[in-house]
Amino acid sequence: MAALTRTASVSELVERAREGNARAVARLISLVEDASPKLREVAAELAPHTGRATIVGLTGSPGVGKSTSTSALVRAFRKQGKRVGVLAIDPSSPFSGGALLGDRIRMQDHATDPGVFIRSMSSRGHLGGLAWATPQALRVLDGTGFDVVLIETVGVGQAEVEIASTADTTLVLLAPGMGDGIQAAKAGILEIADAFVVNKADRDGADNVVRDLRNMLGLGGRHSEAGAWRPSIVKTIAEKEEGVEDVVEAIENHRAWMIDKGVLTERRIARASGEILAISMTTLRERMGDLSGRASLRKLSEQVAAGETDPYLASDTIVAELGA
Amino acid sequence: MAALTRTASVSELVERAREGNARAVARLISLVEDASPKLREVAAELAPHTGRATIVGLTGSPGVGKSTSTSALVRAFRKQGKRVGVLAIDPSSPFSGGALLGDRIRMQDHATDPGVFIRSMSSRGHLGGLAWATPQALRVLDGTGFDVVLIETVGVGQAEVEIASTADTTLVLLAPGMGDGIQAAKAGILEIADAFVVNKADRDGADNVVRDLRNMLGLGGRHSEAGAWRPSIVKTIAEKEEGVEDVVEAIENHRAWMIDKGVLTERRIARASGEILAISMTTLRERMGDLSGRASLRKLSEQVAAGETDPYLASDTIVAELGA
Repeated sequence: MAALTRTASVSELVERAREGNARAVARLISLVEDASPKLREVAAELAPHTGRATIVGLTGSPGVGKSTSTSALVRAFRKQGKRVGVLAIDPSSPFSGGALLGDRIRMQDHATDPGVFIRSMSSRGHLGGLAWATPQALRVLDGTGFDVVLIETVGVGQAEVEIASTADTTLVLLAPGMGDGIQAAKAGILEIADAFVVNKADRDGADNVVRDLRNMLGLGGRHSEAGAWRPSIVKTIAEKEEGVEDVVEAIENHRAWMIDKGVLTERRIARASGEILAISMTTLRERMGDLSGRASLRKLSEQVAAGETDPYLASDTIVAELGA
Repeated sequence: MAALTRTASVSELVERAREGNARAVARLISLVEDASPKLREVAAELAPHTGRATIVGLTGSPGVGKSTSTSALVRAFRKQGKRVGVLAIDPSSPFSGGALLGDRIRMQDHATDPGVFIRSMSSRGHLGGLAWATPQALRVLDGTGFDVVLIETVGVGQAEVEIASTADTTLVLLAPGMGDGIQAAKAGILEIADAFVVNKADRDGADNVVRDLRNMLGLGGRHSEAGAWRPSIVKTIAEKEEGVEDVVEAIENHRAWMIDKGVLTERRIARASGEILAISMTTLRERMGDLSGRASLRKLSEQVAAGETDPYLASDTIVAELGA
């Protein structure tokens, strides 16, 4: 494997990253998440290789054992010989209780495994925030040959809804003794699950959580519609790696169902639409910012202020300029 | 004066409104604030008549006497024979403590005066919110011959900053006994003042508020820059209509200074720029919403999902379509 030079071109970086060079992967992610001028080149180089990774979202309230579960899942996929990428999303670091999620997973034995790449993403210091940076980083991992990408996020704010629109399969983690079973789960989080993982299953109340979930799934809503996917419920003790193979099986079952029904393709097309529109809006916003100093806007504004035209007619000119 | 029919055209409405027909004014405002299809026609009809009104913003914490002061100002301007419009902005009704601001002003004797038009604007039920609706309504009042438009808002949220970018002259109301003088004023609100009105000046502590303001103005910041406007400080007892003529004079002085320095024109050009950009962004967002069902986006998304193109190249097509 050739050494990675500081001045490596984008295509060299992609080549090295696809060979398994973690520094090349990291550099590509930095290029895209900070919207560098090379962003477009990276996207173009990656495009032919994308669309192959299995993308798994993993969310749940603090304390349910997300980092431990992610780590156990990484190990399980590694046993299958798969390359695994992890994006550990910290929407707001205060909630993570100290170390970044990614650091905590990294500490759990994967630091020296070249088949595992872990990236912490916090909302600080990114142009456009996590909603912008996450799909970009995902595209890099997908396009550089990772077979599985796990996106882990704390179940706060909008993050868990975004994870569901980004992932192929979304796992919602619960644990007994967290308040009052599924009653304590944040509103909206149960709806996004493709599989429920009841972790810490050796604790009192685990069976109650499972029973509550079964009742809920039987009661109606999206999950009981005809032809809809009925989420699996899996019990785990992630600390002891118990039940993790069942989670992998649940992911594979969901994937097989999605392929069978054409849902996987539709999810990916919807995700692509979302990405295209987000990029378009960012482009337009940038162009609008550039306008502020431009003569055309100044002239139109003078005409509006003088009553020679109205702001709607003036905006027609601006909108046409923005699209050009 | 001809009667106003239900089917009156936009140009009829503008004609009647300019003659002083309050129902015609109200109907025009409804057309623009809800972004009706006639919005552009209204803007075009009004344009030649705009740019004449003196626009005064009035803000301050709850309890300083904003409604009473607005009402007293209306009376003072009416004595000069001027037509006066009031936009009473309720960013969030809970803060207004019951009746809408406009209703409270209306109750104070102006209900039967055809030279006064009062409109309450709450953030409920408006497309695009108050930031969208306020400049639109202002444009109607300006274009239908109101000599003075008072924009009153509770000093909460972003509203007071927006008022400063919308008004020619911004009055910040304070009152003694509200916490600890100017220390209690919300951060940012002192910076936007072109004049300070210390209301309830018969109460203990009024002179302390005036002294604190003088000290603050001497201490640096925007107001002490060379060539900058130095805000006047006026004491009033709005309930007894005392000092209100001084407020009118402060507004006139500020206006004369702005005209002398070319600041008024620049403020209006900046306001027009803001309006043009806001309308442009709204147009683009609408067009983007329309795209969701369109074949071109679907096709591009399929190509991205299949790795045949990347989302950046795809967005070029979309951005061009949006501008067209």
